[in-house]
Parts: sequence; C-alpha cells; structure tokens
Amino acid sequence: MTNAIEKRQYRDALRIFGASLKAADPARGIERLLRVEGSALYAGKFRYDLSRFRTIQLVGAGKASAVMARAVEKLLERRVCGGLINTKYGHLAKVKRVELHEASHPVPDEAGVDGARRIAEIARGAGEEDLVIALISGGASALLPLPAEGITLAEKQATTKLLLACGATINEINCVRKHISGIKGGQLARLAAPATLLALLLSDVIGDPLDVIGSGPAAPDDSTFQQAWEVFEKFGITGKLPAPVRKRIEAGVRGEIPETPKSGDACFRRTRNLIVGSNRQAVDAAAAAARELGYRPVVLSTLIEGETREIAAMHCAIAREALLSGRPAKPPVCFISGGETTVTLKGDGKGGRNMEFALASALALDGVEDVLAFSAGTDGTDGPTDAAGAWASGLTGARARAQNLSPQAFLARNDSYNFFAQTGGLVMTGPTGTNVMDVRLMLAGTPR
Amino acid sequence: MTNAIEKRQYRDALRIFGASLKAADPARGIERLLRVEGSALYAGKFRYDLSRFRTIQLVGAGKASAVMARAVEKLLERRVCGGLINTKYGHLAKVKRVELHEASHPVPDEAGVDGARRIAEIARGAGEEDLVIALISGGASALLPLPAEGITLAEKQATTKLLLACGATINEINCVRKHISGIKGGQLARLAAPATLLALLLSDVIGDPLDVIGSGPAAPDDSTFQQAWEVFEKFGITGKLPAPVRKRIEAGVRGEIPETPKSGDACFRRTRNLIVGSNRQAVDAAAAAARELGYRPVVLSTLIEGETREIAAMHCAIAREALLSGRPAKPPVCFISGGETTVTLKGDGKGGRNMEFALASALALDGVEDVLAFSAGTDGTDGPTDAAGAWASGLTGARARAQNLSPQAFLARNDSYNFFAQTGGLVMTGPTGTNVMDVRLMLAGTPR
Repeated sequence: MTNAIEKRQYRDALRIFGASLKAADPARGIERLLRVEGSALYAGKFRYDLSRFRTIQLVGAGKASAVMARAVEKLLERRVCGGLINTKYGHLAKVKRVELHEASHPVPDEAGVDGARRIAEIARGAGEEDLVIALISGGASALLPLPAEGITLAEKQATTKLLLACGATINEINCVRKHISGIKGGQLARLAAPATLLALLLSDVIGDPLDVIGSGPAAPDDSTFQQAWEVFEKFGITGKLPAPVRKRIEAGVRGEIPETPKSGDACFRRTRNLIVGSNRQAVDAAAAAARELGYRPVVLSTLIEGETREIAAMHCAIAREALLSGRPAKPPVCFISGGETTVTLKGDGKGGRNMEFALASALALDGVEDVLAFSAGTDGTDGPTDAAGAWASGLTGARARAQNLSPQAFLARNDSYNFFAQTGGLVMTGPTGTNVMDVRLMLAGTPR
Repeated sequence: MTNAIEKRQYRDALRIFGASLKAADPARGIERLLRVEGSALYAGKFRYDLSRFRTIQLVGAGKASAVMARAVEKLLERRVCGGLINTKYGHLAKVKRVELHEASHPVPDEAGVDGARRIAEIARGAGEEDLVIALISGGASALLPLPAEGITLAEKQATTKLLLACGATINEINCVRKHISGIKGGQLARLAAPATLLALLLSDVIGDPLDVIGSGPAAPDDSTFQQAWEVFEKFGITGKLPAPVRKRIEAGVRGEIPETPKSGDACFRRTRNLIVGSNRQAVDAAAAAARELGYRPVVLSTLIEGETREIAAMHCAIAREALLSGRPAKPPVCFISGGETTVTLKGDGKGGRNMEFALASALALDGVEDVLAFSAGTDGTDGPTDAAGAWASGLTGARARAQNLSPQAFLARNDSYNFFAQTGGLVMTGPTGTNVMDVRLMLAGTPR
C-alpha cells in the first residue's frame, strides 16, 4: 500500500461521510418531506388542510429540535402561532415564533421538567380545530422529563439508576420509564387529542421504531404496568424502589390508573408519526456518493449493534475477502454499514465507539494493501471527545510502531482517541446539527 | 413465519452444508488435484516424473491423514513403498502399504513422539532419488510432537502451558514451539532434503498459511530464536522455563544452533506444499449448492474469527437488512461465511462455537420471519459434544419459551448444546473425515 492510495481513499471516505451528514440534516429532511401547496400541507403521504386549523403550535424536545422548528417555521411561516421546544443548553436556532427552553442532557434537570410541563399544557389546551406539530430528535428521552403525578424527578432518576445497576435491558428500562411518566409512551398524543398531532422524528434508534424514538410520545405503547412490575420482580428490587414509584406501578397493575395508550386507541385517530431523518438515509446517501466516486457500493446493514472490536473484525474480514477473492463484491468496493455499536470498557483511556472501531481495524488490517476503514458518529461527537470518529488503513500499524506506540496496548485500555491523536486519523467535523447514529465505511481498492 | 418455511430452509441448509462436506473431503481433494498419466504424477500445477524415483514413502500426521494416505495409495498403487502416519486413536483407514501409528490428540503423548521420531528417520533416510509425500491435516501440531534434542515432551508441554496462562497469542506460541521442535517450522523439509518432498495439506487455519497449517513442517519459517526469546521476556517468564528449553533458545540466539529453515533455503528446492482441502473450497461448494437450490449465494468472508455471539449478531443484522431492504442482496439469499470463531466461556454449560452461534442468532432473529441461521463444524464435532452445530429460526425463541426455557439464560452459561437438545436444532453428522473449520449459513426468504 502506498501513501497515495491511502490519501485517495481517505479523501473519498470523507466525501462519502459528508454526503451522509447532508442527507441526515433534519432541516433538509423536513424540506424534502413537507411542502405547502395553497392551503394544503403535504407531509410524506399525508395531506393536511391548513385552512381548517384555528392554530398551529410547535412542541418538541431533542438536541436537533430547535433546528427542526426553524425549518417548520420557514415552511409554514406566519401560520405558526407559537409553541415550546425543550432543547439542550446551547443547542439553539434562529426561531421566530416558538420559544426555545434550554435544559440538561443527558441527565435531566428541573428546567427540563418545567419545559415538559408547559409542552403538556400546550397539548392539553389544543382542541379539535388545532394542529400540534411535535419535533422529536436524539436526546428527547432526557429532554422531555415529566414524572407522573406524585413522583419527583429525583425519584424517577433513582429508579432508572437502580435498573441500570441491575443490568436491565434498554427495553425493560423504557417499559418502566413510560409507566412513571406523564408524557412518554403515547401520552403526548392522549394529551393532544382531539387536536391533530403530527410528530416529525429524527431517528437515533436502530430500525426506527416509533415507540422507542424519544420514548415514543406520539406512538402507541404496547408495554404494560404488569410488565413494569415484572421487571422489578425479575431483579428483586420491589423493596428498593422509591415509594411513590412502587405505589404508582401497583395501582396501575390493579387497573386504578389508565394504561399508556395502545394501538387503536381513539387518541391516535388524528396522530401521525413521520421520520424526517434516519440512519437509513445517511447510509443510502453514502452509497450514492460512493458510486459517484467510482466504488461499487455494498450496504451490509443499517442494523449493526454489538461489541465494537468484534464488529470491526468482521467488517475487516469482509473487506479482506473482497481484496482476496472479489467476494462478496469486486474492488473497488465501498462497504457501508449503519447503526450503533457499544464498547465494554476495560481500560480508563479516552475514546468512543467509532474511534475504537478504527483502532480495532488498524490491527485487523495491519499490512493489508489498498484498504481503509472509517467510522464516525453523525452527530460529530464520538464518546466524550471532540472527534466524530477516526480512520485507519493497512499502514496505520507501521506508523504507530515507528513512533513506538502499540495499537494493541491502546485498544486494551480503550484509548483510541489518544492513539489517533498521535498517529493521525481523527475525524473532526464539529457539531453537525443531526444525530442518526453512526456510519462505517470499508474502502477496498481504488477506482481508476 | 410458518413451520413450513422453517422446514424448507432447514432442509436446504442441510443440503448446502452437505455439499460443503463433500467438497472438503480430503480423499476427494486428492483425487481432484492429483492424477497419474503414464509415469507422470500431476499435482496441481506441479509435474513429477515418477520413473526417476527409487522409492516413494508416505509420512504425515493429523486426524484425516490416514484417509489421505489411502487416497494416495489408491492413486499410486504399488509405487508406494511404505511410510508412517501418526493418526489420532481410532482415526484409521484401510491403508495397505503405510503403517498407521495411533497417538493422542489434543494433548500429545509418548506414542506421538515415537511416531514423529520414526517419521523424521524416514525423511532423513530419503535421498536424492526418493520421493516423500507428507500428508498433513488438522491436529498435526499435536500429532507430530518431536521435542528438539535434550528436551522432553513434558518440558515442551510445560512451556506451552506457561505461554497459554500468560495470554500469549497463537502466533507467539507457534514461534516458540517451532524453535523447541525437531520437525516443525520447515524442519521436515530439511530432514528430507535432498529428497523430493510433496506436502499435501488439509487446511484448518484461516487464510491457509503454509507455515501455520500443522506448524508448517514443510514450509519456510520466518520466525526466529530471537523472537522466541522476546516472547519469554515480554511475559516475564524467562525464569520459569524448564532449563533445557531456556538453554536451547539462548543457544539459538547466540547462533550456536541452526535456525529453522527460511524462505530460499536450499532444502526447499525440491519441496512443494499443496492445499488439498480448505474452508474456501467448502464455502465455494456451499455457494454453488445454494444457487442450485434457488438462493442468491453471497459469500461474506472465509476469514471470519472473533467472539461468536457478536459475530452472530452481525450475521443476523445483515440477513435482517436483506429482508428489510433487499441489501446487500435480495431474498431469497443465502449468506455464507467460513473461518472459525471463538467463545469466551462465562458459564459452565455444554456447547461449542457453532451451537453458540445458532443460540445467539435465535435471540437476534426472535420473531423475524423467513430467516434461518445454521452453523456447523466441518469435522462433525462442535466443542466437547456429539453435535456438529445447530440451527435456529425466528420461531426458535417462541418454541423455547413454550417449554419455559430462556434462550438468554442458556447463552449466559454457554449451554447451547442443552438448549438445542431440548428445543430441537442440533445438527448431527457424526465424524466427517475432514476438518476445514466451520461453515455458517443465513438463509433469508425461500425460492419459489
């Protein structure tokens, strides 16, 4: 492998990732999916007669929701009467009619609760002749914290902490959270009914399940109080719960509190959920850009999760096979995958899943010619660092050893950031204004 | 998903795997690659003039080597003068001219040393006008134990044990082993020179590296005494080594003992290594059989290694994407991969990497329609069990729960054998007479 090939592949990878970011921009997504013709609003396959609405208000929560609100304002202009968005401190946009309410993420704070309460009031106040547009993006679970009546934010958080410590799955935690919340699990739709509710979602969840993105405030929830109770029993923590949490779930099991709204409930009659940005779109755009640059694009999957270094090894095995035998596709080929992996921390280094993917790839590709691995988060932030991700090639190992650095040792202590800071390979984008999980690229061979 | 689809996919998977086994049969491999025309022996691209050899002797070691010897005997008939094969206890074949010498695997015994010594003598005794054919198959490292002069088998084994306990890599262990052996790392070729040496290899190593298969008795070795010493130093065990082992490596570092033969050494002038069976062939045959049955065959890679459950998750993510979006290939599709994964044991259950692959797949595919995962070892033995592997579909999870079995719990204790023994799903082939690692299949959709 020569530096020239590496340089070319690196440049191409950056362009391909750039196309992903562009495609995943939620403002562009809204522009692409929504349009106004006369008094009609077309949103995907749905059509709304704007003339029949007395008011249009925007609510929402998430890191990109301010930007999304601005895009909707640009589209609907003076038709927007007002509303409120819970956004992360500093994650602002130039909105004109909607109030931006800053709150804490990833750990919710009382400011978040205040905002969520006001959003609930807006929804509750909307009537049959009103349209509420909800803008949900990554971080919405933390940025839309509305503990159910009688429960404090601290008690809600203590419950989550307890579940995390037991090793509960994210599905189990979500089941409980929805049943101690006053807005999650479809309850925003119940508050808004009989108003019309259009939820626009920027998905940061694998497979884009409507009931999971932002804890599904506008989507039917098929989990139950009974299941929430079973989660507590499974981990033997019924005795450790804050008393109001325990009381609420028990009351729910006895049928004294209404369940979260289920599929088919009347409150969803005028509710629509629409994905305006997703990992799939980012991956599709990467495929198109790769083709444009002369690579055969092969989308492996948008559903990738699992332990980062193992997933990296399998990506590398596929790329090496392509170079060896032209299978599953002949070089020049760009393998693309989406989703989000995890890192089981063993060391105290600085890094993120994308940089660790690149570091594990540096080992698996050590000395292999004509191949480059690239992995980056679409939000521009990989773990607690200022990098979006990193890239590595067959030359990376040698470059490290020339500096007396051991890739194995950096990987063993999860220190991918410092590895690439020293060998070169960090991908820096700054905040991107979107978040649709990660994009991984494996470039094998180069176009003529 | 219906039982009918599952049944169809299972039947197809078994057929596809059957084609892999047939292709990986070493006797068939020898029949395919070698032929006699008049007094010429063609072996792949090599041609030997049999009339110029005074004697032809067969040596070798490995679980399939007896079967390979029989295939060569059938081909060369009376031209074979004799020889000796170290085979695993009970792994016999009806040979006529060659002696089968049974020994222990995977832990070598003195019978193995006796056999290896006699093989070394045969090689040493062969002259310029003799042909030695070496038959190497899986298990040859353990079945060809010839400690270097002054070292006992027990001391050699103690050294390997010490390295394993430190977490040394297989490459590091092999480097040491070759330098305390009298036959590994190309030394059989040195013993045989100036005779002609044709080594026929059944590969059980990813990527088919000649110097690793059976510890490369007939292949150049690029590792050194110096590197072996550095391995000891790296793990701080120079003081714990058996004295003769330490002395030998030190003498080697000082140049007092000849190195293992390197590429270009004269002893390889009349030596050829030829792969007669490999994972690649098994995978290629699976692809052909899948196509025959109406599936689009997609070979992901023959180079798969890594932690089984993570590798399974990625296979499942790819299959689910195919069902969801027709990428990387439209159903009906059969994804195929080869190589060999590992299992980090956490529980005390009974299982193997192939059954664990299927169990992890049962979880990742739970409730998904029209997909079946299949994984089996080509030797017919997965871990310490009588099964070759297992299969799972989107129905497996429900079937387990109906019996009050938790797939998660079985996976947590690495108890895949007992899981599939109870739910159905074990793949039983009995001993297959070959060993070219594993074949994994993911069937998505069914042909019309």
